Parts: sequence; structure tokens; C-alpha cells
Amino acid sequence: MQLVVAGTMALDTIETPFGRAERIVGGAATYIALAASRFVQPVGVVSIIGHDYPAEMQAELERRGVDLTGVVRHLTRPSFFWAGRYHADMQSRDTLDTQLNVLEEFPDTVPSGYRGARFLLLGNLDPRLQKRIYEQMQPRPKVVLLDTMNYWITGARGPLEDILSEVDILSINDEEARQLAGDYSLRRCARSILAKGPRYLLIKKGENGALLFSQEGETYFFPAYPLEDVFDPTGAGDTFAGALMGYIAQQGHLNLEVLKEAIVQGTVLASLCVERFGPEALLHADEKEIAQRREALIRMSHFIRVPA
Amino acid sequence: MQLVVAGTMALDTIETPFGRAERIVGGAATYIALAASRFVQPVGVVSIIGHDYPAEMQAELERRGVDLTGVVRHLTRPSFFWAGRYHADMQSRDTLDTQLNVLEEFPDTVPSGYRGARFLLLGNLDPRLQKRIYEQMQPRPKVVLLDTMNYWITGARGPLEDILSEVDILSINDEEARQLAGDYSLRRCARSILAKGPRYLLIKKGENGALLFSQEGETYFFPAYPLEDVFDPTGAGDTFAGALMGYIAQQGHLNLEVLKEAIVQGTVLASLCVERFGPEALLHADEKEIAQRREALIRMSHFIRVPA
Repeated sequence: MQLVVAGTMALDTIETPFGRAERIVGGAATYIALAASRFVQPVGVVSIIGHDYPAEMQAELERRGVDLTGVVRHLTRPSFFWAGRYHADMQSRDTLDTQLNVLEEFPDTVPSGYRGARFLLLGNLDPRLQKRIYEQMQPRPKVVLLDTMNYWITGARGPLEDILSEVDILSINDEEARQLAGDYSLRRCARSILAKGPRYLLIKKGENGALLFSQEGETYFFPAYPLEDVFDPTGAGDTFAGALMGYIAQQGHLNLEVLKEAIVQGTVLASLCVERFGPEALLHADEKEIAQRREALIRMSHFIRVPA
Repeated sequence: MQLVVAGTMALDTIETPFGRAERIVGGAATYIALAASRFVQPVGVVSIIGHDYPAEMQAELERRGVDLTGVVRHLTRPSFFWAGRYHADMQSRDTLDTQLNVLEEFPDTVPSGYRGARFLLLGNLDPRLQKRIYEQMQPRPKVVLLDTMNYWITGARGPLEDILSEVDILSINDEEARQLAGDYSLRRCARSILAKGPRYLLIKKGENGALLFSQEGETYFFPAYPLEDVFDPTGAGDTFAGALMGYIAQQGHLNLEVLKEAIVQGTVLASLCVERFGPEALLHADEKEIAQRREALIRMSHFIRVPA
């Protein structure tokens, strides 16, 4: 197994100013696996689905080199369900409904065939569960990326700081960074979060791009790809993390140069994702369009010719 | 005259989470002139002050090569006064008090010694007044930069669009761009605003940096310099515009390469400005610190080595 991903697989009902999509496939691990499997296969998933998670999407994932051995299929209960409505700014949203359903039985066992993977992406889950999954990997993976959210930062800070001390890359948004560090200045937030363990901190800022901070004190800015229209932001952060970790796994190692290019790859794939409902755009992402957006993104950021 | 600046000169009372400053010197033209005169002298100012605008600041401006021939000094009325309180995020603010005072008698005559200047910065004022000032310049300046605000976008759209058709660079914030274009996507806003006349559109996004759009369809991202603490954001946008236009005037011409470096200079000087109350930091800006921040800003943005 090249890369192991733990995260939710879900059905989502999404309302945006542009329309509504009813019970479409979602969940962090769905987006992550679709994005990461563009770079490496097989990608092993640890998750749980209900009887209503479409068989076609399972087949599609497997066709793309995603291994579903670690996905528990519940025969009687429905999948984790989320419904939300995006505001006109397409950044803020209201959660209209959350039904945990099978999520309460999320597996804490990593299939033996996954345990030797060198790359591990711990999607947003209870940090105690993230820790149990991490501990089953033997030997310790070369690179571990962690995602989390406000709910765990306030409700499970001890366990979160525990697993944080083990990870290489923490990927969170600006609001979460401020909450985790208890400060407003992102620069000071970065310093105090990096002191908790991660070698690299990625702060995602939606349409305002992302910031990378390293333990060595380096800082880099990454703009978001400027879109004419954001159609559905759901899954953008997961797509970003999936492509990022897929690229790192493809390179086989992590250093600053690899990570910077990985962030660009994640940014580009996330920009495609948000142009369609759910993960649909990821299923049809065009290599030529990806290459063009990558070039444009670099050109738009490198605003001054650097002296040799 | 190298550069002519039209804008308010004021007294401000500022409250931030870090403290309070009472009736300190402010106003767009004060910040612009202090920033621009680092690059070129003389800088001629068209403005009006009351009896309470400190004589020491007038002397300081003149010492720095700022020509105050175009500043009407009212002997009996007080200066334009603004009081505001910044929220904890240091981006949003409440206006607590606005007293127009002498601003009602803002001069619409440009001194004859100013009229041949090749560079003109029209600070945020009634667009009809901006137009009258513009029309007195003979010959038409090589480069005209315009700033405006929501008040004029909603209340004087016709006159604003009239002067907009004459300018080279429009410098506004993201909220103003959205209001002016009546759209949410900044990329689409840029296209429709550039169709109104400006060759270049600069959209300022506070701590999220700035975007540059050109009529030729080019886009560039500029991060803000990442500060540990923002102490007082007052005047940041004016400092940015002043340094930017000062740099352009120093170069003597405008093209994309000049403008990109001008934006970097503006970004760096604005980052210094917000670390102290009012324009104080501009009076003590250190060339070495400016050079270091410039280098850091470029390094942090040029995240990928561009293939030759």
C-alpha cells in the first residue's frame, strides 16, 4: 500500500446560490482518495459506509486504484449524512442536518495489508481514533498528515495535542489555527502550533490561498487559483490534502521543495473540484487543464524576477 | 512638481484593542505624502486643514520635500476629524464620529506650479472634485492613480464612472470592487471594472494581500507582509498607494514590471505603518528594515523555482 487514508465517507445534500444536489457522494475520504489516486496507487481507505453509499462510486474508486479493504460496509444502517447551505460569499455555510448513522461504528482496525504503508493521511476524525490508527502502522510511516476541526479543538484538546506531537504536516484553516493557538496573529499562531510537534503547518484560507510555515521558520504564500465562479466549495480542503499527500507519496519523500510543489498540485485540483457539485469534477479532471492552471498559478505569484 | 496628491488631511482619534490615540494627525494625503516623498520630491499636496492641524507636522512634511502650496489653511474652523474603533480582528472597524469641518471647503484649484506634474494621485474624495483637479493638469499626467470608497460608489456612481474612464490605476479594496462591479467573483469584477477605463486594477485585501489585474488579462498575487502584531491599521491603504505612486514617479514611467515592484514597495511600507499608531512609523521607517522585508516578501511568494 502506497498511502493509507482514514476519513469519513458520506452522503451530502448541498444547497448553494447556484442550485441544490440531493444525497450525493461526499465525505473527506471520498475526496481524498479520488485526489490522491491520481498520483499513486493503491490508496488504502479506512472508513465505514452504510447500505446507501452507491455501489457505482465504490466501483469507480476501485477502478482508480483505491483499495476498499479497510472500509466497513454496514448492511442495514445508512451512511453518515450531512446537509448544508452555502451563503452568497461561498465561504461561510450553515449545517442544516448531521446524521452520524454508521459513523458511530467507525473501525479502529487497520487491515494488515495497509500497515506497512509509508504515507498516512489522517482525515478529520476523533483524535483518539486518529491515534489508534496511527499506532497500528508498522514501521512508523515516513510522512503523516493530519486534518482536524473546531469540534475536536474545543472538545478533545488533550487527545488532539497528543496525536499532533506525532505528525509531520498539520493542515487546517485559519479559523481553526486561531482557535488551536488561542491567538489572532497567524504568524504567532504558527509558532505556537509548530511547537506542539508538526514539522510543517499548512493554514488554508479559502479564496485567499494558503500559508506554509516550517519548524525552521520559513514561510510561504500560496494563492488560490482565481476562479470566475465557485459552484460548490464542499470537499475543497479534502481534495487539497488528498492531492498534496498523493504527490508526496509519488515523490517518495518529504522536504520543503516537494511540499511546495505538493501544495500547488493540491491548490489546482481543489480549484477544479469547486467548479462542480460534489466530487464530480474530480472524476473528469483533465491533465492539460491541470498543467495550465499550475503554470498560471506560478506565473501569477512570481511577481518579481528574483535576482540570480 | 514630480507628483501631485489630492486628499484629506485630518485629525483622528483611534481605538484599538492595544490602546487609544487622541486627535493624532491623519487623513489620506498625510499618509500618502509621507510615503511618496521617500521616493520623489517635491510632492505637491492639494488639501485643506483647520487651525488645529499641528504646525510641527506641516514643518516635518516640508522638511521631507512635501510642498504645501496647495493646502488651504483655515484660520478659524477645525480640521476634518474622524474617530473609529477597530475590532479584535484589526480588519473591521466602527466609525464613532465624523466631523467634516473644513472639508466642506476643500479647494478645487490646483496651484499653477503643480499643473505640469507628470504623476497624479487622486485620493478618496468626491469624484466630481477628483475630476476638476484632474482637468487642471496640463498636459495630461503620464500616470493617474485613483482611490475611492463605498460612499461614492453608491452615492455618486455617474461622476465616479466619469473620472474612472480617465485613470491609469484604480486602487480599491475587495468590498469596494464587489460593490462597484455588482458581482462576487473578483475575477469577473476585475474584468468589468477594467472595461470602465483603468489600465490596471489593484484590489487590496488587508492581511490577505492584494491582486493586480491588467487590461491585457494578466493577474498577479501579492501577499501582505506577515506581521506578528497589527497595532493600528489606519492609513495602511493610503501608505500603500503613496509608496506605490512615489516609486512609479521615481522610475518616471509605468509598465507592468514597474508596477509590480511599486506594489511590493507599497506593501512593505504599509506593513511598517500598521505597527505604530497613526503615521508615526512612517516618520521613522528604516531603509534596512524595508530592504529586508522586501526580500522576505519576494522569497515567501516565489515558492517554486521557475523553469528557465
